[in-house]
Amino acid sequence: MLKVEGFTASAVSADIRGKGDGRLDLGLIFMDGESTMAAAVFTRNAVVAPPVELCRERIGKGTARAVLVNSGNANCMTLYGGREDALRLSERTADLLGIPDECVLPCSTGVIGQRLPVDRMEEALEPLVASLSSDGLESFSRAILTTDTVTKVAVEEVVLKKGKVRVAGIAKGAGMIAPAMATMLGFILTDAEVSRYDLSLVLADAVADTFNSITIDGDMSTNDTVILMASGKGPAVKRSDDLEVFGKAVHSVCASLADMIVADGEGATKMVTFRVTGALDNEEAKKAARAIAESLLVKTALAAADPNWGRIAAAAGYSGARVIMAGFSLSIGGVRVLENGQVVPGYEEADAVKVMQKDRYEIEVGIGTGPGTAVMKTCDLTEEYVRINCEYRS
Amino acid sequence: MLKVEGFTASAVSADIRGKGDGRLDLGLIFMDGESTMAAAVFTRNAVVAPPVELCRERIGKGTARAVLVNSGNANCMTLYGGREDALRLSERTADLLGIPDECVLPCSTGVIGQRLPVDRMEEALEPLVASLSSDGLESFSRAILTTDTVTKVAVEEVVLKKGKVRVAGIAKGAGMIAPAMATMLGFILTDAEVSRYDLSLVLADAVADTFNSITIDGDMSTNDTVILMASGKGPAVKRSDDLEVFGKAVHSVCASLADMIVADGEGATKMVTFRVTGALDNEEAKKAARAIAESLLVKTALAAADPNWGRIAAAAGYSGARVIMAGFSLSIGGVRVLENGQVVPGYEEADAVKVMQKDRYEIEVGIGTGPGTAVMKTCDLTEEYVRINCEYRS
Repeated sequence: MLKVEGFTASAVSADIRGKGDGRLDLGLIFMDGESTMAAAVFTRNAVVAPPVELCRERIGKGTARAVLVNSGNANCMTLYGGREDALRLSERTADLLGIPDECVLPCSTGVIGQRLPVDRMEEALEPLVASLSSDGLESFSRAILTTDTVTKVAVEEVVLKKGKVRVAGIAKGAGMIAPAMATMLGFILTDAEVSRYDLSLVLADAVADTFNSITIDGDMSTNDTVILMASGKGPAVKRSDDLEVFGKAVHSVCASLADMIVADGEGATKMVTFRVTGALDNEEAKKAARAIAESLLVKTALAAADPNWGRIAAAAGYSGARVIMAGFSLSIGGVRVLENGQVVPGYEEADAVKVMQKDRYEIEVGIGTGPGTAVMKTCDLTEEYVRINCEYRS
Repeated sequence: MLKVEGFTASAVSADIRGKGDGRLDLGLIFMDGESTMAAAVFTRNAVVAPPVELCRERIGKGTARAVLVNSGNANCMTLYGGREDALRLSERTADLLGIPDECVLPCSTGVIGQRLPVDRMEEALEPLVASLSSDGLESFSRAILTTDTVTKVAVEEVVLKKGKVRVAGIAKGAGMIAPAMATMLGFILTDAEVSRYDLSLVLADAVADTFNSITIDGDMSTNDTVILMASGKGPAVKRSDDLEVFGKAVHSVCASLADMIVADGEGATKMVTFRVTGALDNEEAKKAARAIAESLLVKTALAAADPNWGRIAAAAGYSGARVIMAGFSLSIGGVRVLENGQVVPGYEEADAVKVMQKDRYEIEVGIGTGPGTAVMKTCDLTEEYVRINCEYRS
């Protein structure tokens, strides 16, 4: 059951897309006690939406108590007007909740460059606030979707010294999942009592090898936001054993959501993990893993279940990571393909094809220069991706 | 007529793909006088094919007199064996031509990771050399193709102080046309008498805003090579007026070939020029232009003739170039869309759509921080690209 003590949520249709189809597109999460404990990470895109700027400011001030999220419109490249819209909506929400304006974090996702239909949205705020309930997270998880085909939620429970705590995560992804940060919206809620400082540590750590280690199309969104909020209704997280256990729970929720995002990549039919080893250091390993995971030639080969390892080697080669060709190794789901830069004697391509026909598998790529390792998860590139992105908006 | 004094060429089928379809796949260009004047630029991929390494060495030594090119197999990730193959083929070619081994520059393009069928290729060398003729460049231009749908040739004639000179270019492209260098094979031939030093200058200058300013899929090949050879049979290029005129002719040939490569991009239906202005400097402009030109979301929008300028702004934002949102401007083939970060009053989307339905047009993107400018040419991303790259090889 998608519930976390100290949180209520709701969702309504504000007809943001203007299609009159009643689709849920406006969601609210309210941390209904005294806590303002929250941490967040944001897109590193220089073109950033006004709601992201507002979120940053308010997270910085430590005033967060609610998130107001809309899909269908990113409120980006809307300049001062877009900021006014986000301010107005969060003020009105705060009024209805009876909390200060600065307690509301606005998030938007969707098309760039159009003003929000603020009047319609403002009208929808009253029913939105009125329908807040501890059962509301499920409909919230639907309201934030764009081209996602499924909702993405994950829950973990762990036992701390003072008792059990719960961590629940809700995300949206689909396209534009790419370099640097999450490139998605994610909301991680916990009933634990945690300091703002510890929340920041735990979130930064969790994001690095989950949301920051997935790619769909290499495009980085202008609106990426992951927010972690702690209601403090449950037991406190004491340093340092507790913190580790709690951190693992948050990590696990983020990892599940990240996997769901890749698996639901636009047009994707499979999720493939690239594990790069033998790089000079972890940073170079990440460079190589990212170049491989983002290469269109690699991603189309994944779609075709074609063990065309030359494309993988070429992508590692242009990644900027140092590689030694005679030190290259490669295995596909345990099928050893290359060693010391050469095809392994007895390698049968059919064995690799068999692995590549699965929904999920791992390809390990050794680049022969050192101890560095990194992982990136990606999906295949299909004609369906192109179809979706040619049609989206029109 | 595709002829240049001082050059003969030929092409045969060596059945490199093993399909027995008689397709031309082995080509030779011979600079048949005393001249060894040549310059070249190569891929910057760290995974580089043995023939590229051999070319580099021989260009460095100043011994070039012939190029031997095969399609269907890149002879890459083939290590010492691949080097032996390239050495053996160039030695045999040199023997047949009666010139030293080091005079032959081997080039390969095609699948990575398979050894060349050297025996078949060696057998084909005799008829290849025997059929050298001053009319052979046309069939040579067909022998080097991979997934290209058309041959790519361009000719310029210019008048120097001592008379007329000719510059002819032959290239192959199609996929893997991407960052940094040409990511293709190109052979530029001239009858002018030019020093090695001047050839290098002229080529470096020509490549920068032609082959280095196009992208198809962002993948960088392991085998990119552009070679400029001067037979010296025609008039000499005297500094400095002549050099400028000659340089412009080489530039013009490279520009034509680069355009043909983009227009023949895998699955491409249109070629779009992105001109970035208002960057901090030209380097930042290039970063932004490249990110925009390589964005899958932008390229699918081009395919759909959808003026979704938000995707362009987002790509500029994550490019690493500094941008000022309130300084953004954008126009699509003369239709002004954005100014000062805002949609221009009276802008009609239908006007932009009309431009985007054309085969060729330009999009200008101002990012509002300085005087820097740069251009990148790209093609749209269609389902056909995915189909080709899922099917290639299998």
